[in-house]
Amino acid sequence: MTRSHIESGPTNIWRYQALLPVPVDVAAKQNMNPGWTKLVKAGNLGRTLGIKSLHIKDDSGNPTHSFKDRVVAIAVEAARNFGFHTLSCSSTGNLAGAVTAAAARAGLDACVFIPADLEQAKIAMARVFGGRLIGIEGTYDEVNRFCSELIGDPLGDKWGFVNVNLRPYYAEGSKTLAYEIAEQLGWRLPEQIVIPIASGSQLTKIDKGFKELVALGLVEDTPYKVFGAQALGCSPVSAAYKAGHDVVQPVKPDTIAKSLAIGNPADGPYVLDIARRTGGAVEDVTDAEIVAAIKLLASTEGIFAETAGGVTVGVLKKLVENGTLDPEAETVVLNTGVGLKTLDAVSSIAEPTAVIRPSLDAFRAI
Amino acid sequence: MTRSHIESGPTNIWRYQALLPVPVDVAAKQNMNPGWTKLVKAGNLGRTLGIKSLHIKDDSGNPTHSFKDRVVAIAVEAARNFGFHTLSCSSTGNLAGAVTAAAARAGLDACVFIPADLEQAKIAMARVFGGRLIGIEGTYDEVNRFCSELIGDPLGDKWGFVNVNLRPYYAEGSKTLAYEIAEQLGWRLPEQIVIPIASGSQLTKIDKGFKELVALGLVEDTPYKVFGAQALGCSPVSAAYKAGHDVVQPVKPDTIAKSLAIGNPADGPYVLDIARRTGGAVEDVTDAEIVAAIKLLASTEGIFAETAGGVTVGVLKKLVENGTLDPEAETVVLNTGVGLKTLDAVSSIAEPTAVIRPSLDAFRAI
Repeated sequence: MTRSHIESGPTNIWRYQALLPVPVDVAAKQNMNPGWTKLVKAGNLGRTLGIKSLHIKDDSGNPTHSFKDRVVAIAVEAARNFGFHTLSCSSTGNLAGAVTAAAARAGLDACVFIPADLEQAKIAMARVFGGRLIGIEGTYDEVNRFCSELIGDPLGDKWGFVNVNLRPYYAEGSKTLAYEIAEQLGWRLPEQIVIPIASGSQLTKIDKGFKELVALGLVEDTPYKVFGAQALGCSPVSAAYKAGHDVVQPVKPDTIAKSLAIGNPADGPYVLDIARRTGGAVEDVTDAEIVAAIKLLASTEGIFAETAGGVTVGVLKKLVENGTLDPEAETVVLNTGVGLKTLDAVSSIAEPTAVIRPSLDAFRAI
Repeated sequence: MTRSHIESGPTNIWRYQALLPVPVDVAAKQNMNPGWTKLVKAGNLGRTLGIKSLHIKDDSGNPTHSFKDRVVAIAVEAARNFGFHTLSCSSTGNLAGAVTAAAARAGLDACVFIPADLEQAKIAMARVFGGRLIGIEGTYDEVNRFCSELIGDPLGDKWGFVNVNLRPYYAEGSKTLAYEIAEQLGWRLPEQIVIPIASGSQLTKIDKGFKELVALGLVEDTPYKVFGAQALGCSPVSAAYKAGHDVVQPVKPDTIAKSLAIGNPADGPYVLDIARRTGGAVEDVTDAEIVAAIKLLASTEGIFAETAGGVTVGVLKKLVENGTLDPEAETVVLNTGVGLKTLDAVSSIAEPTAVIRPSLDAFRAI
């Protein structure tokens, strides 16, 4: 495995095929082929926040416009390998769309489960690809428990739940974020990275990805700090971090950042370990701060993030202001999805600044 | 200009910098850096329609999720060069978002004009980046006339209207679609290509791009047929093509494909020339066919297109069915935007297939 071997590969996650649990010929299969999204040099936002070198990893450019395409791409190959006929998941929205799209392309059936009160755009996006979309009356954590029951039942036989029985494969997909960031920085680890926390899996796998690159000699072994970001309305990991606890107390989510609304995050304790080991931190922001951060990112860099991106940018701002993040160190922030899926968060600007007749006089009179 | 020079460039439109009216150091400037979107091998859709080799060029992966980022990226550099302080446009929606985003990133003011009745998602997307968004009571053609008036007025001094006074630069951006398609096919022209028609500029510039690649010796001079696609509710070019006319009679648009709703398309006559010269055609589809095509593309390839993508896929289907398109020839179809911006078109599926309590019994009872 050399840099030039990777650089000559496809401009998607399969350039890292050798580092992923997928077949050698994966690039030739019916897969969504996500990844190689833009690492945007965010000079304007950096100047606004007083950060010297800032980049946004913008995963809204993926096929279904969230980072979930990465993890599902790996799970699909595992599902094929196990002979599953149906692809499934419990989802806060983005994953449902990624699974139904990938199943359509792979020729698998899809049946996905979501909390019934999700954003309309996420529901439409999950249904347009076909398959069944089942709304569950309850929180994400209840949806998740239901899926675990279903796996144990004959009803769920030959079903691949990407984030349950296929989870070990699925989770590896998040490592590609680490690989791409390092390669796009010129084969270098960032000094600081801000990552959203839902289940916590993404954060732990980015850490794993960085360590693999070091172990393979693809990047120098330089220190990096990992910062986790949560919405205050669902901040069990942040609360544990601040209290100095090793265990995470489940909460009932209440936040506009629905894609992060997992009240009982499976990888919470590992997130705490990584934040503490690397010298990072876990922080949270209010819903109002999330909305303000969405607008700040949009108006400085032209990136329209979903609420999860508002969480990471809002936490970035807070970490600089409270002195936790070093403004002189090279920093990467993740935007994991597109604002078009969470329009309610910016409903206050869902109309023109003015409506006029088509005349210069009318324009002058504004 | 050699293939390897291009291949070693950035994975965005600036790999073709030498073929575009932009500064040599454009990649270092504050620009959205769009392009290098996926060319998806559409085996499932091809099989369904009986087409042997089919690809979708999916421009929903661009920074603001439509092809408009390509043209605006060129216009921004021209605006900088002319010393304009405000970036503007008349828009059917996608362009407004692309302009306000690019202006935010480039540090320019933005003031954009749209028909007041646009989709909510396009309005929110155009406002979130800052600047002014003015709704005009009228059609796109009236918005466009208003902008021409504004340019002649002292009010519009130092304003760069990307698709009016900056149009010669702007339009060149569409050539990058031709360059990318040819390079992604392995430095080869497709035999057939289906392109949506709004003003018609995109289609004429893709033809220009293909011819440039031949002239530069970057691809072999093989024949290609260009097919234009319109919505029946705004089909002045298709009507002229079918009637054997050289001129295009303006119409008043009435279609769900609002991004293509230009009743008086400036480049209509050139589109007719190109379709006839290359042995292609211009065809149209009804709103119902557009919606069906959106669902067909989604359920076969996992791509959620906006209504304009429904138009091209719908026209592709019609052209195969009426024998105009050769199912044995290599074919590329454009998807120019994301379905998340035109959710109304799929409002019938904006709810789960079922809503249940989190229990196996409830699931069994569906």
